[in-house]
Parts: sequence; C-alpha cells; structure tokens
Amino acid sequence: MKKEKAYQRIFKDREIGYLDPDILPTLQAFFSWPNLFTKSSCSGRITVIDAHMPWDRKNSTVVFKDHLGITSNQLDAVVEKGALRKLWLIVQGPIFHVYAKTLDDVWKLLQVSRSVGFKHSGLLTKNSNGYLVEVRSGVRMDHLLYDRSPLSEFGPVVSVANEVLKRGKERLFSLTQALKDSI
Amino acid sequence: MKKEKAYQRIFKDREIGYLDPDILPTLQAFFSWPNLFTKSSCSGRITVIDAHMPWDRKNSTVVFKDHLGITSNQLDAVVEKGALRKLWLIVQGPIFHVYAKTLDDVWKLLQVSRSVGFKHSGLLTKNSNGYLVEVRSGVRMDHLLYDRSPLSEFGPVVSVANEVLKRGKERLFSLTQALKDSI
Repeated sequence: MKKEKAYQRIFKDREIGYLDPDILPTLQAFFSWPNLFTKSSCSGRITVIDAHMPWDRKNSTVVFKDHLGITSNQLDAVVEKGALRKLWLIVQGPIFHVYAKTLDDVWKLLQVSRSVGFKHSGLLTKNSNGYLVEVRSGVRMDHLLYDRSPLSEFGPVVSVANEVLKRGKERLFSLTQALKDSI
Repeated sequence: MKKEKAYQRIFKDREIGYLDPDILPTLQAFFSWPNLFTKSSCSGRITVIDAHMPWDRKNSTVVFKDHLGITSNQLDAVVEKGALRKLWLIVQGPIFHVYAKTLDDVWKLLQVSRSVGFKHSGLLTKNSNGYLVEVRSGVRMDHLLYDRSPLSEFGPVVSVANEVLKRGKERLFSLTQALKDSI
C-alpha cells in the first residue's frame, strides 16, 4: 500500500538524517487523515544559493542550508568566498506535497490549509498516487546578497531572515494543530 | 453569462486605466478557450512596500508600483522618505486567476501553464463561477531595502529587479503563445 510505504520511508529518512529536524509532528498529522499521505516536504529553511535568479535550479549551487536559522558569522563566511554568479539569501516557509484519495479530501485539505495561512496551496495534478496538493504559504524572502561584490552590511538581513523563518515555523505549528483538529 | 461579463469588464477596466498596460493579449488568449475566463490578473510588476514582512497585506502600504520597471532615481526617492516599518522591494511575475468550467479544462490549463514555466500553478477552489485556477510562476524577488536605515547601494538591486521583471514578461509572452497554440 502506497501510504504505508510512504510512512515507513519517513522513518528511514530520519535514520539517515534526510528528514528535516522539526517536521515529524506535521507529517504525522497529515498521515492521521485516512485518505492522505505526503511524499516530499520541507519544514522551512534558509539557503544561500549561487545563481543568476532565485528560482534557478540548473546553473545554481546551494552554498548554505539550515532549517533552524543562520548566524552573522555563517553568512559572512559564505559571502567571503565570493560567487560564480550572484548570491541570494532565500528563506522558504514550510511546503508539503500531499496525495489525497478523492476530490472531497482535496477540498477539505485546501480549506484547512488556507484557514491557518497556507494561502498559496493548490491542487497541482493527479496521477497513480492520487490528487497531488501543494500546501504552501506566502512566507518567503529572496534577497540579493552579492553581485560581483557584497551589497551591504548583513546584520539586519540576518535578523530579518531568521524572523521570516520563525514566522514559517509558527504556521507549521498552526497547521499541525489544525490538521489534528479536523480529521 | 459570466464569461461575457468578465470580458466586458476588461475593456471597462482598460478605459479607466485599471488594466495592466501589457496584459490584454494574454487575457484574450485565455478567453479564446471555450471554457475559460479570467477574473483578476497581474502582468508582473515591481512594488516597494512599507511592511514588516513581504507577504503582509494588513499593516502594509504600497509606496511604489510599476508594471514596466523601476529606475535608480525612483528607488532613491522612495527610500529617502524613510518608512514606518521596513521597506521591501518586491518583484512579482505574472499571475492569473482563471475560472474553468470542468476538471478536464483544469488539467489541460495546468499542463499548458506548466509547460511554459508557470510551475506554481494550481487549482485553488471551486465555486459558482467554476474551478478557480491560479496560474503563477516562480519568478519573484523579495528584497529587504530598509530597516531603520537603508541597507545598501541600490544600483545592483535596481538592475537585477528589472531583469527579474523582464524574465516574468518573457514567460507572459510564452504563455500567450502556448494558450493560443493549444485551444
């Protein structure tokens, strides 16, 4: 059964260290709904990427990644090394890719997600796993750090980036509660 | 008929000056599909907002908005006035809210949208107008400009912001073509 396999996979990922450190309660809340399971997820994170554009996947290298925050020293160390392209500091809120069995499950999931601030959630497609819903909020920051040279003092950028990440984590917590409350 | 009313609305908006200057061909391409119509749309734009967080709607003021670009002088003038909260420069790619009559129309629209880089498109909800699809790409920038004082020289920020906007406009053009080619 696909749902069971996906659930076992989570614990395998956790053993290897692939699982985001603070995501398990939310995944379990999704799985507690009878007709849902998750495939790929992120609890929210800060990355620094070497890329021309913040959304580039090809021609892009992740030079820093942390799900719990960044310090000024860490950012300084990353920027000191310079870049091939540009450096972007990207804060991303929590994102979940959730398979739902029926369209009714989809509507219910979207309604619950939206009610706790995951307002960019939507049904992406359907395939042999079911209806694929992306659960996502508007919590985000894509800040240009470096373009041939560093752009600024990074003190305020670090502090605001950590604040953005924190706002994402707060929504993660609300989502977990809302999923449990509306099984 | 809702579709006809929505179409007339576009030209009324254009008369008043509400319509984005470069959006009409894409809207017409959506309307050329028998079972689609659009309700609210944006061709992509640069804004500067006075807000704590880039996604804030309440407690947030738009202090600059342009669908075609920003100059260094314009940005300097905006930042010189300071801010109540923080200043964020936000570049947003094109976004369309499209009503589709059937789920088959939804799948086809999502497939066409995704094929030309609108990868964050999804079905949001259904209501009396039909199935509401958001067509949206990952083209975006949320740059912190000012937090009690200006953060940096803005030359590179202006040039990268205009480049991000341009990438959005290129996708707008591809979307228009793809919609026409796959009626």
